[in-house]
Amino acid sequence: MVRFVDVAHMREWVASTGVPSIIRGMSQYMEDDFRRWDEFDKSPRVASHSNVGVIELMPTSDGVQYGFKYVNGHPGNPAAGLQTVTAFGVLADVASGYPIMWSEMTILTALRTATTSAMAARLLARSDSTTMALIGTGTQAEFQSLAFRELVGISSLRIWDTDPAAMEKFERNAAALGLEVYRASSAHDAVTGADIITTCTADKQLATVLTEDMIVDGVHVNAIGGDCPGKTELDAQILHRADIFIEFDEQTRIEGEIQQLDADHPATELWQVLCGDAPGRVRADQITVFDSVGFAIEDFTALRYVDDAVKGTRFCTEVDLIADPADPKDLFSLVSDSTLAVEPVHSAGGASAVIR
Amino acid sequence: MVRFVDVAHMREWVASTGVPSIIRGMSQYMEDDFRRWDEFDKSPRVASHSNVGVIELMPTSDGVQYGFKYVNGHPGNPAAGLQTVTAFGVLADVASGYPIMWSEMTILTALRTATTSAMAARLLARSDSTTMALIGTGTQAEFQSLAFRELVGISSLRIWDTDPAAMEKFERNAAALGLEVYRASSAHDAVTGADIITTCTADKQLATVLTEDMIVDGVHVNAIGGDCPGKTELDAQILHRADIFIEFDEQTRIEGEIQQLDADHPATELWQVLCGDAPGRVRADQITVFDSVGFAIEDFTALRYVDDAVKGTRFCTEVDLIADPADPKDLFSLVSDSTLAVEPVHSAGGASAVIR
Repeated sequence: MVRFVDVAHMREWVASTGVPSIIRGMSQYMEDDFRRWDEFDKSPRVASHSNVGVIELMPTSDGVQYGFKYVNGHPGNPAAGLQTVTAFGVLADVASGYPIMWSEMTILTALRTATTSAMAARLLARSDSTTMALIGTGTQAEFQSLAFRELVGISSLRIWDTDPAAMEKFERNAAALGLEVYRASSAHDAVTGADIITTCTADKQLATVLTEDMIVDGVHVNAIGGDCPGKTELDAQILHRADIFIEFDEQTRIEGEIQQLDADHPATELWQVLCGDAPGRVRADQITVFDSVGFAIEDFTALRYVDDAVKGTRFCTEVDLIADPADPKDLFSLVSDSTLAVEPVHSAGGASAVIR
Repeated sequence: MVRFVDVAHMREWVASTGVPSIIRGMSQYMEDDFRRWDEFDKSPRVASHSNVGVIELMPTSDGVQYGFKYVNGHPGNPAAGLQTVTAFGVLADVASGYPIMWSEMTILTALRTATTSAMAARLLARSDSTTMALIGTGTQAEFQSLAFRELVGISSLRIWDTDPAAMEKFERNAAALGLEVYRASSAHDAVTGADIITTCTADKQLATVLTEDMIVDGVHVNAIGGDCPGKTELDAQILHRADIFIEFDEQTRIEGEIQQLDADHPATELWQVLCGDAPGRVRADQITVFDSVGFAIEDFTALRYVDDAVKGTRFCTEVDLIADPADPKDLFSLVSDSTLAVEPVHSAGGASAVIR
């Protein structure tokens, strides 16, 4: 049997544990995993693009466990009442190849992305940062806000979204969370006075959410919306003024903001900063950009964290996913067992009986 | 909700429908999919190797649906009472990126591999073939035998395995199926007089299950056990005497028997034969080899076939895998809803309370 965390169980676990508590715990797991970067089997995600979106598989392994995430990105989905991003993932045992846990990851991806952003900001933003501009107040916004309050000390938010309903939604949720929010009249207005700027928009195109004149010395930019070939958020001039930090070079070069730059433009992998192998922020007036696209190790961390948290609790169930006959070479016995002989079902009798 | 076919439901569907009926129906779907080869997004599978096995993801898409399979290969597993190969897979909607169906694929992979082998043999074996040698009588053996009886007209089997218990298991199952079986005293003995030779062994190494002297003119070799870099079954001399047919060049060059040959050694993709773009068997005395490693499109076919067969029947259930709030931008509402507020559970309170 394989542990299973469906949406209902994930909701109950998150609601009863609390988002801030999860983000704090997950950030410890994530720092641990980033510090042992060399142990992981790493490759860019495998993307299948269509005109309207992308479906991706994101596998990695530390040699003991293997994890992968299935995730889509469809910017037009909200107009049809659907999520832009949905996801699920599986954790498996490398020694046997058997899956261990299967989890919904739409909610979990929001938690892991927020955790990653805040972990990076602790290394890259000025330590006296208190104000964050949030450009894009969709799915990620509340999770980002709570992560930056919990891990970075952000007490004040300045928001902007081209969709007024998204800002209203955010203000409503933020009020219940006790977050201090200023609703800006433009992106320019939102970034004014901000120590940190988080961009989290979903267009599948080369957009310019931030222009060069919006960036002042000392700011940290947390750019999480640009995460596909041909999908960016920042004016390339910002990148030329900044020190750029990324997750995994091979993937970010084709998916991140730096797809706008020469292939040899300097960019530092975040794990190097965590391990002390490369500097993070070195001056108060430095402009730093975390060009985040989301990497498989972060999902591995999230799966590992959830599995440790829910195993043996009422927050997971089990599914019968592994066909395991008593004699391992006698798989056929599972489908020939006379105890299974049941009455024929017409519509399952073959393709010919089925409407395609 | 996502349709879910767990092991119990797969067993019931297969047992009540019957393996021969499924193989016949699935072969029609597979021929359809191979004939529209150009419509598919194709790439070699993504493998994560360890010392004891491999875990692979096999994605593909026809632009309307997307499918992937998770599959492991661990030759040492049976000694620990586990399956060498376990698998599961998902079918998704390209337009929304949402998953449609989740299925166990350990049993399903056995069915699709047997279907693929028999489909190839219909194109490549002599049409008067009646006798098949089966080298390796493990998990695949009964499925292969039924597929070749159903689709190719094989009425007589000559079996060999280095594990006597595996041969006894096969004889037991074969008797119940009414298959005529000769238990050979060696691989040499097994192939004597055979029209078709199927090799299906599981060592993760360069093995020589068939040597050149065992191959006579006119035989068709269905080589399905060699499917990893460094894992082969055939003496390279056999390949030099034969016309070689494969699934997908880019993958087979690194995984198949032809990894032993020069990179430009001729090999014909099977879909070309199906479409009439390349010849299959042209002479009775020709030696043909189907160097099969298993390709993502075959799994896509199998998922599509199962989904069409089980939807709306008692052979599937549903799982709650997609977090889908009423306002698609308000994912946070799913974890902040006060109706979800339940009593805290100690062991889920965070990583610190959990034994790692």
